Amino acid sequence: MSLLLTDPEVAAALDAPTTVTAMRDALRAAYDGRLVAPPRATATLDGGRMVLTAGHLVGEWYGFRSYDTFGLPEGEQVVVLHDARTGVVRAVAVGEELGSRRTGGLGGVAIDALARPDAATLGVVGSGRQAWTQVWAAAAVRPLREVSVHSRSAARRTAFADRIRAELGVPARAVGSAAAAVADRDIVVIATTSTTPVVDAADLARGAHVNAVGFKQVDRHEFGPDLLDRAEVLATDSPAQAVGYTPPMLAALPPYAGRLRDLGAVLAGAVPGRTSADQISAFCSTGLAGTEVFLLDRMVRVAATT
Amino acid sequence: MSLLLTDPEVAAALDAPTTVTAMRDALRAAYDGRLVAPPRATATLDGGRMVLTAGHLVGEWYGFRSYDTFGLPEGEQVVVLHDARTGVVRAVAVGEELGSRRTGGLGGVAIDALARPDAATLGVVGSGRQAWTQVWAAAAVRPLREVSVHSRSAARRTAFADRIRAELGVPARAVGSAAAAVADRDIVVIATTSTTPVVDAADLARGAHVNAVGFKQVDRHEFGPDLLDRAEVLATDSPAQAVGYTPPMLAALPPYAGRLRDLGAVLAGAVPGRTSADQISAFCSTGLAGTEVFLLDRMVRVAATT
Repeated sequence: MSLLLTDPEVAAALDAPTTVTAMRDALRAAYDGRLVAPPRATATLDGGRMVLTAGHLVGEWYGFRSYDTFGLPEGEQVVVLHDARTGVVRAVAVGEELGSRRTGGLGGVAIDALARPDAATLGVVGSGRQAWTQVWAAAAVRPLREVSVHSRSAARRTAFADRIRAELGVPARAVGSAAAAVADRDIVVIATTSTTPVVDAADLARGAHVNAVGFKQVDRHEFGPDLLDRAEVLATDSPAQAVGYTPPMLAALPPYAGRLRDLGAVLAGAVPGRTSADQISAFCSTGLAGTEVFLLDRMVRVAATT
Repeated sequence: MSLLLTDPEVAAALDAPTTVTAMRDALRAAYDGRLVAPPRATATLDGGRMVLTAGHLVGEWYGFRSYDTFGLPEGEQVVVLHDARTGVVRAVAVGEELGSRRTGGLGGVAIDALARPDAATLGVVGSGRQAWTQVWAAAAVRPLREVSVHSRSAARRTAFADRIRAELGVPARAVGSAAAAVADRDIVVIATTSTTPVVDAADLARGAHVNAVGFKQVDRHEFGPDLLDRAEVLATDSPAQAVGYTPPMLAALPPYAGRLRDLGAVLAGAVPGRTSADQISAFCSTGLAGTEVFLLDRMVRVAATT
């Protein structure tokens, strides 16, 4: 494997089971304190910021992801992996695949841990890159029987359903409303760029699990407090990052903060997840820092053994 | 040119004249406000820090250099160059050459601007990577007649003198003391890891110019206040960074701070540099942020036209 990895190489190397397993290991490592992931570091430039999220698996590796807030059409992220024994750079990934796959992988871990064991239907609102990797990872942890898709663009939601059938081999159909997409679904994914709620919690089936990937802060959120009120089980991949959002994440404020569970703690068996089939559970994705480097390390290790 | 550049490629592409010219342009751009380089951003890991210095040449590019403070034997820096119009990553450099060449290049600009026009002899204390790139850049701005070298290790100073003869074609000899290395020299380079003074200002010839590359803070410094007292002309590549050191840089404190000039301002003709042949001038190198990315951009541009 070369030192530099671009999107096609990341896509070829990281299938969903590998990615979900890596993210499960990362969440456990973070919960155990082996994965150190401090708050993001920021440098302000003219018209945007350069942001670094660092991570360190003590004794194994350290590194970071960089991204910027210029909002440019081809803006790319960079992930750098150093060997913790020598300091040498073991790999550099440039592009978007590693980041979106790790977010999908974290979502897959949440579905595996919190959705009903027999969950088999999925409804997704959104048709972008983040929506895709959520469905991609979900299919690796539950044998999906059908997926329904809604997004504002009829062309995009149809193309998304086509892609699910073609790449995941799962029946899928585009539907005309978010309510139709989530009705009667065991698993719901919300992955939009909306700053106002796109899903009404009253439309969720009993026993549903929800992964929320987009905005979830006080002043902009793709779901409203009604979802948090209705969900008996609330979890996040990083309680520390959830608290650190500016402005705060809805789920990190009263009355929800006291109920917000660390997904890593659920995986460790330290706190319960779902305790009955008819509970509604919700996962508020923050993107645990250090997980991009964790995934790059896993990718390099897998490549070295094949 | 590939997206990823390693030390051999950087070394092959960046000769001293190209590097010095790029660093002169960077200093002018910083002085004019076109090169934006904010304070470094830091993420604290277990046993070390990950540090990012970002830069932005408005309308052209933005990017950063990363390094860490673990002190590992093969620790490498990473420099990332983004296109400011699209956000795409245009190049990534991994290793040490780009960073040390840019520090050398900045030193070469200082020598060109502040040393006597007829300067032809150079004394260097130190025999490491930073010492080398200073001499390498000096030879590009003045026709050197002889170099004298001192460092603690006789083997290393001899090898360093050999390398100067071989690679730069300049007569060079190793000497047994720092005082002997700097005596009667037109140009002096101090580039050590020493935390206590290695050069006595009384040993400098009248009219000498000094580049100081190593520690220069209140609590650790390779030269003492005697150098700052004796130098009529004091300059740095970044007054803002000089002030920002923790603990402060000697030259950024009274009574020196009021005399410390911005090398970019000297280049722009906004403040004078040396005004007589017998003045002693000193350049306190800080490593202007953003200059690694500036140099990587220049390297990519030069490669694109050849």
